[in-house]
Amino acid sequence: MAEAVSDDVHVFPFRVYYEDTDAGGVVYYANYLKFAERARSELLRHLGTDNTALLKKYEVMFAVRDCSVTYFKPAHLDEALEVHTRITGVGGATLSAHQSVMRDGKLLTDMSVRLACLSPVGRPARLPAEIRSVLATLHKRS
Amino acid sequence: MAEAVSDDVHVFPFRVYYEDTDAGGVVYYANYLKFAERARSELLRHLGTDNTALLKKYEVMFAVRDCSVTYFKPAHLDEALEVHTRITGVGGATLSAHQSVMRDGKLLTDMSVRLACLSPVGRPARLPAEIRSVLATLHKRS
Amino acid sequence: MAEAVSDDVHVFPFRVYYEDTDAGGVVYYANYLKFAERARSELLRHLGTDNTALLKKYEVMFAVRDCSVTYFKPAHLDEALEVHTRITGVGGATLSAHQSVMRDGKLLTDMSVRLACLSPVGRPARLPAEIRSVLATLHKRS
Amino acid sequence: MAEAVSDDVHVFPFRVYYEDTDAGGVVYYANYLKFAERARSELLRHLGTDNTALLKKYEVMFAVRDCSVTYFKPAHLDEALEVHTRITGVGGATLSAHQSVMRDGKLLTDMSVRLACLSPVGRPARLPAEIRSVLATLHKRS
Repeated sequence: MAEAVSDDVHVFPFRVYYEDTDAGGVVYYANYLKFAERARSELLRHLGTDNTALLKKYEVMFAVRDCSVTYFKPAHLDEALEVHTRITGVGGATLSAHQSVMRDGKLLTDMSVRLACLSPVGRPARLPAEIRSVLATLHKRS
Repeated sequence: MAEAVSDDVHVFPFRVYYEDTDAGGVVYYANYLKFAERARSELLRHLGTDNTALLKKYEVMFAVRDCSVTYFKPAHLDEALEVHTRITGVGGATLSAHQSVMRDGKLLTDMSVRLACLSPVGRPARLPAEIRSVLATLHKRS
Repeated sequence: MAEAVSDDVHVFPFRVYYEDTDAGGVVYYANYLKFAERARSELLRHLGTDNTALLKKYEVMFAVRDCSVTYFKPAHLDEALEVHTRITGVGGATLSAHQSVMRDGKLLTDMSVRLACLSPVGRPARLPAEIRSVLATLHKRS
Repeated sequence: MAEAVSDDVHVFPFRVYYEDTDAGGVVYYANYLKFAERARSELLRHLGTDNTALLKKYEVMFAVRDCSVTYFKPAHLDEALEVHTRITGVGGATLSAHQSVMRDGKLLTDMSVRLACLSPVGRPARLPAEIRSVLATLHKRS
């Protein structure tokens, strides 16, 4: 279960635990958004930074502006899953990504997400140039 | 903080607790899907049934097929919020709803959700006629 | 499902939703700590304040120092439960409480919790006199 | 961040994400129980089984009977933590463990937990002999 980036796709492996499931016997629908956020955090870390560093060094944070999720197949306790993340757009103060939750190469859940870069008090802020260029590189590869 | 239904809108009031917030000082984005699900459960209860009864009596359960969320303003610890739910479509085996999270009449988060009616093993199932007619009544009022 | 305080016990009613359950078909064990925290927050509100006000007015917050939980019976989806909270000790900078999760008068889960009063940077802080006296009153009644 | 077992201690590494934190800027107290449960699940997997297999093969599951948690130091967003798990007792139908959440060798949170082995309908069940002997080996080493 190692992290990987091939071409433009960042792959974040994770495991399903009891906390992720519900009485329907499957992963609770809101928890896919947690998995996606973990993957975005690991993508940042892969790029040499993290949420804490962004806040300290650049005084910015990311907030989700909108997301659209389609649930194709359920996931279950103890399964080994992956989030595949692809950057689909880098703007002056926004970032778009496409994220898929996969099991053994099968698509379980698909998500499009748009993030805004914000100041600590929640005002729109420009993406730091350094971060922007790294993300843009990742984006261009796609 | 009492539940209310005026015309076609079901209003579910709730409070923001520490568990709902994150280190950004606001409600974590995935938790709005929890609030929306609580509201849908209370709407069912308002209609005289609940998830447990649906499963026992009709052997069906609801699963979210897709949802689309827009985040306008953040919510914070201790705030009193409401989920406003409107049924926007009732099909043979599906159900659509529009759900808004409000604070003092201001829109914080907007969500469109489509649910499928499933058998206990996850196969598509027809909405029980009884439930369908109640939901359709609620829908027609809108 | 209305909040109530009789003598020394604060009663917080709540409902079990899908988010609270796990694939074992029961409420996930960590979530009882969420219910207990909601109840403590509502107890504060009942006493005329809340976590946000404590931080703004007195620059203090509560943090759990230790808790001990015994699980007697499981809770399930859609059940109406209550947290019964009794203040068992009020110190200069700490607070102890006993909290029980009940269903129809039956004890499901029992918890003892000790909280510390902290400054915003996490240093021990004295309980504000005003809060202390209100809590002590509640405590003496027991 | 690789799993490890040295002598009698199972080490489960994990990362703190936004979902784990609260508006106090630290990891929410209930979430340490999630981390501990993940670690117990990985310990099972390390022993050659998992929760799903236990249920299918032996028709048993584990439920927490009681747990006692002491919070020494807070954890924060983006930190790399570990759960250290030691089996402290193996009975006919119960299992005891001591679990510590560590950061860079420093103890953040300490937990004692007792689990019961249950049938799918929640009745006490004997620990499968195979599982018991593996756990006992792990225990004897301590």
